[in-house]
Amino acid sequence: MYANNGRILRINLSKKELKIEDISEKLLRKYLGGKSLALYYLLKEMNPRSDPFGPENPLIFSTGTATGVPLPGFSRFSVLGKSPLTGGFGEAEAGGYWGAELKYSGFDLVSVAGISEKPVYLWICDNDAELRDASSIWGLKTKEAQEAIRKDTGESLARVALIGPAGERLVRYACIINDLKFANGRSGLGAVMGSKKLKAVAVKGRRKPEYKDQDKLKELAKWFSENWKNHPPAVSRSRFGTAEMVLPLNADGTLPTRNFIKGSFDHAEEISGEAMAKTILVETEGCYACPIRCKRVVKGRPPFETDPSYGGPEYETVAAFGSLCEVADLSAISLANQLCNAYGMDTISTGCAIAYAMECYENGILTLKDTDSLDLKFGNAEAMVKMVEMIAERRGIGNLLAEGVRIASEKFNGSERYALHVKGKEIPMHEPRGKTGVALQYAFSASGADHMQAAHDPPFEKNIEGIMPLGIHETVNRLSLGPEKVQLFKTLHLWWNLLDCLDVCKFVIKPHSVGVFNVNHIMEVVNAATGWDTSLHELMTASERALNMSRLLNIREGFTEHDDTLPRRFFEPLESGPRAGAKISEEEFAKSVKIFYEMMGWDERGIPKLSKLHELGLSEFI
Amino acid sequence: MYANNGRILRINLSKKELKIEDISEKLLRKYLGGKSLALYYLLKEMNPRSDPFGPENPLIFSTGTATGVPLPGFSRFSVLGKSPLTGGFGEAEAGGYWGAELKYSGFDLVSVAGISEKPVYLWICDNDAELRDASSIWGLKTKEAQEAIRKDTGESLARVALIGPAGERLVRYACIINDLKFANGRSGLGAVMGSKKLKAVAVKGRRKPEYKDQDKLKELAKWFSENWKNHPPAVSRSRFGTAEMVLPLNADGTLPTRNFIKGSFDHAEEISGEAMAKTILVETEGCYACPIRCKRVVKGRPPFETDPSYGGPEYETVAAFGSLCEVADLSAISLANQLCNAYGMDTISTGCAIAYAMECYENGILTLKDTDSLDLKFGNAEAMVKMVEMIAERRGIGNLLAEGVRIASEKFNGSERYALHVKGKEIPMHEPRGKTGVALQYAFSASGADHMQAAHDPPFEKNIEGIMPLGIHETVNRLSLGPEKVQLFKTLHLWWNLLDCLDVCKFVIKPHSVGVFNVNHIMEVVNAATGWDTSLHELMTASERALNMSRLLNIREGFTEHDDTLPRRFFEPLESGPRAGAKISEEEFAKSVKIFYEMMGWDERGIPKLSKLHELGLSEFI
Repeated sequence: MYANNGRILRINLSKKELKIEDISEKLLRKYLGGKSLALYYLLKEMNPRSDPFGPENPLIFSTGTATGVPLPGFSRFSVLGKSPLTGGFGEAEAGGYWGAELKYSGFDLVSVAGISEKPVYLWICDNDAELRDASSIWGLKTKEAQEAIRKDTGESLARVALIGPAGERLVRYACIINDLKFANGRSGLGAVMGSKKLKAVAVKGRRKPEYKDQDKLKELAKWFSENWKNHPPAVSRSRFGTAEMVLPLNADGTLPTRNFIKGSFDHAEEISGEAMAKTILVETEGCYACPIRCKRVVKGRPPFETDPSYGGPEYETVAAFGSLCEVADLSAISLANQLCNAYGMDTISTGCAIAYAMECYENGILTLKDTDSLDLKFGNAEAMVKMVEMIAERRGIGNLLAEGVRIASEKFNGSERYALHVKGKEIPMHEPRGKTGVALQYAFSASGADHMQAAHDPPFEKNIEGIMPLGIHETVNRLSLGPEKVQLFKTLHLWWNLLDCLDVCKFVIKPHSVGVFNVNHIMEVVNAATGWDTSLHELMTASERALNMSRLLNIREGFTEHDDTLPRRFFEPLESGPRAGAKISEEEFAKSVKIFYEMMGWDERGIPKLSKLHELGLSEFI
Repeated sequence: MYANNGRILRINLSKKELKIEDISEKLLRKYLGGKSLALYYLLKEMNPRSDPFGPENPLIFSTGTATGVPLPGFSRFSVLGKSPLTGGFGEAEAGGYWGAELKYSGFDLVSVAGISEKPVYLWICDNDAELRDASSIWGLKTKEAQEAIRKDTGESLARVALIGPAGERLVRYACIINDLKFANGRSGLGAVMGSKKLKAVAVKGRRKPEYKDQDKLKELAKWFSENWKNHPPAVSRSRFGTAEMVLPLNADGTLPTRNFIKGSFDHAEEISGEAMAKTILVETEGCYACPIRCKRVVKGRPPFETDPSYGGPEYETVAAFGSLCEVADLSAISLANQLCNAYGMDTISTGCAIAYAMECYENGILTLKDTDSLDLKFGNAEAMVKMVEMIAERRGIGNLLAEGVRIASEKFNGSERYALHVKGKEIPMHEPRGKTGVALQYAFSASGADHMQAAHDPPFEKNIEGIMPLGIHETVNRLSLGPEKVQLFKTLHLWWNLLDCLDVCKFVIKPHSVGVFNVNHIMEVVNAATGWDTSLHELMTASERALNMSRLLNIREGFTEHDDTLPRRFFEPLESGPRAGAKISEEEFAKSVKIFYEMMGWDERGIPKLSKLHELGLSEFI
């Protein structure tokens, strides 16, 4: 079977059982791999309404059909499970090298069920796998733990996806980190790993997968390497990383600032990607087979010195610890980032939790007594960094913030309006009041507000180049919430979701402004890798299948149409900046929800109709 | 603009006006051309609830985006208008050379409105067009008329699409014929042409269209010519024509016989494609750029001598005049075919009307008095041939049969159950009781029961090779009417409809068993011809757009969900043959209608929801 190993590794930690199962090509073609095939197993194997930290809840690591082909963007993998943050569908993708390494090790997916008696890590090497004792590394931060594992396995280049102390302590937004800087960040799946006493999944693979059409893959690689340097946004991304978005968003009035009260930040220059390049940047880094190298490696300056091993902050991190907390110090932001990577916590949720706490503090809901004398006002860099540690170690107020803003706000009376989340998941760094597509994306993402869902890039709404194969022939005003926007959103929602089903990086492909590959290239890569004759139609249908499966999973967990909403704040005007006064119309938003349901073939309560499930070949899940 | 001329020729016959209008590339990409772009104009320009024969009703000749590329299957064109047979959306495609010739003349579409005072014909030659007097050829049969027009224009190879005396006399299923043997057969659009006093549209073009990627087109042509000879069904089609279907259908018990009372015919051998090859076949003929040459040229034997200029009977014709009327004489069938081509009448509706009359006669509803002493029993070859002429000349009972079986059955008490039609259009030669996909196709075709809609080929249900890019991963039992069948039907309905939007022959492409091209080739051809970067997703969306437009048009004309049905007979058991007893379950059929509506995003009355129209970019037609 070209490109795919056709094998899933199944672990039951309670029983200390390891099994290898075959995956048929039929199943792979229908569910593609990545998010989608993992969803198939999740729907079949997860006990509805069970505890996210209970043994029933499987945690699935999954690669895409073409993960590992020697092309930029095909490095990623998905982790899926029940999210302790939302109580429903939990999903997180990461780049780096781990995904390709798993493919090379002879497996496409790893499914982990049960709970281990003692801490363990999973060691997968060249078609083989074993559980190893992790008692001595339990409690270690990620760098020390990774070093210990590499030493223990004797493979200095083993790729290690692991949790830090935050995951062990069940911080509800703990993440899984690989190579100390690539994160399956969102949904709290690191805490699920912690609950299973699984410290790490370490992988080494030397099997080069076979691809059906090597020449075509070489041709595409050549095409990409010749073209990306002539595509200014890609070159800019290479130079300044994702934090290059800070300045244009700030100028646009859509840089999340002061816990989303404001849309621009007076000190944006100081935290920009350009500033980073001029000050603390020491190196750039990339994912498997990608020449763009958009990852940063930084060395923070005193008093916020950092270790370059932990990389550097992405845009989401810069905004979450920077403008959202009104912190203007890139080194402080970098240290917060490092702490998150070392303890294993999602930087977005962590930054949001701290901004939430800051707003509580500014409004007297939290006092110095609550904060262990930390002066938690907006802009206090030192307090912000300290709070990261307090959360990771569940110290003082950090213990409650570690539960996420939804649970925290249930304790602190009057703070609900500062707790910005959808379905329990904190809001990423994109302001919906200036881009209504983002509003829809937050509301409809099955895993809660997520920066990896649908389009949040303004150029999408100005330029349809490269989108036409998706059937989009018209631009839509960025502030519209009419049916034409819902339609644009639906298509991009399916498209971005497809990229997760294939575990492809969203930056390398149009319609992202940085994208070099065209939409149709994705189909060509899949066909060259597998020998299939797939089409964009078949792939988009598979994506729709996955979206409906994630919807079904949430419904089974008790989610309703009332969960497809936005925090109150976004229905209220932005306080300042170029878009002061902008807000989402509640009435228009409610209409757009109804239209979206109809367009998806869901009933008025947002439940997929039987006809839709039959249409997508999902009758076994009715 | 590659491949397309970007021009529509508009004629107003009442005002004797000719205008040339530009078509933007944006419109061409959204509506593709062919059936779909013509539908766009029809929806905009047709007066709802107007007389099909009134001046409001435009008649549109339309070519596909890639019509005329030098590849097999890309020869076709669509004619659209209000059908005098159904009172709603009227559509008919034809092969031959006319479509490519129109492209070469510098136009993509010709729209004819108004009614001429005197008979005229339209002469289009190399970017120019004029109306010419047709008084002297009015009343002539097609062969004589075509000769006169070629002489009048001085172009012996002008391609002439014209009507015969049946169209002039407004026979409701009159057709448009080109090269005396290729027919825009169904929907009675020849009568619309007659009502306009437009005898012919003659075309000569010497402009070779430019194509973006000539090398790719050459490569595909080479691929086809190397591959079709290794594909046995294509070779068989070449040898025996479409009538090669007679024997397998007969063996299967699904050869329409005795006005659909029976599913097999004792004399099937005598009317088979194989028998034709052994007896009356004198030559084969093909469409533009196609090596398969599935068209027949025959010379009927006394007493049914025929003129080879009129070609020979297709499968539909053989079954309609043969098994359906229980006529076992290929020469008689060929003469009936010739009369239809000479008078300009659809062979399917004509054969059905005669079979209907025969059943009335056998049951005493018609007597010798009604038939001008013609002994109109099943199997009487001579009477069958005579009836063709009586209908074409509207003589005696032929005058009423010329109105179609629906109107005729309103006059002859007790004959409704013998009048087999959907939406007023007579049933083609495929037995739905043995292939439920055909039942759905008949019910949902916007232009009434039509042999050019969706799949009626049993292999589709056994073999999914080449269908997977359409998102189909499972075979479905041919007798099922469950949701999985509705889903398969929906996809194939969209696919076949797409082939009409592109005016591509359904035989050369999979999933047709004869098909040589793969599904994805269609996209490659469109892209090579135009320089677009379209995808199967974009093309299937365009097809869905067209299906919804034809639905909207019918709704505007007063059609309701009650028109999506089947003749009573198909809910009753087949009387004999291998499938004796087979019937469509009324209850299952009713369920499948509901499911289909839901899958299409239509409400419970079959009306497209606003969300669906927005989704397809059709808000201007709300």
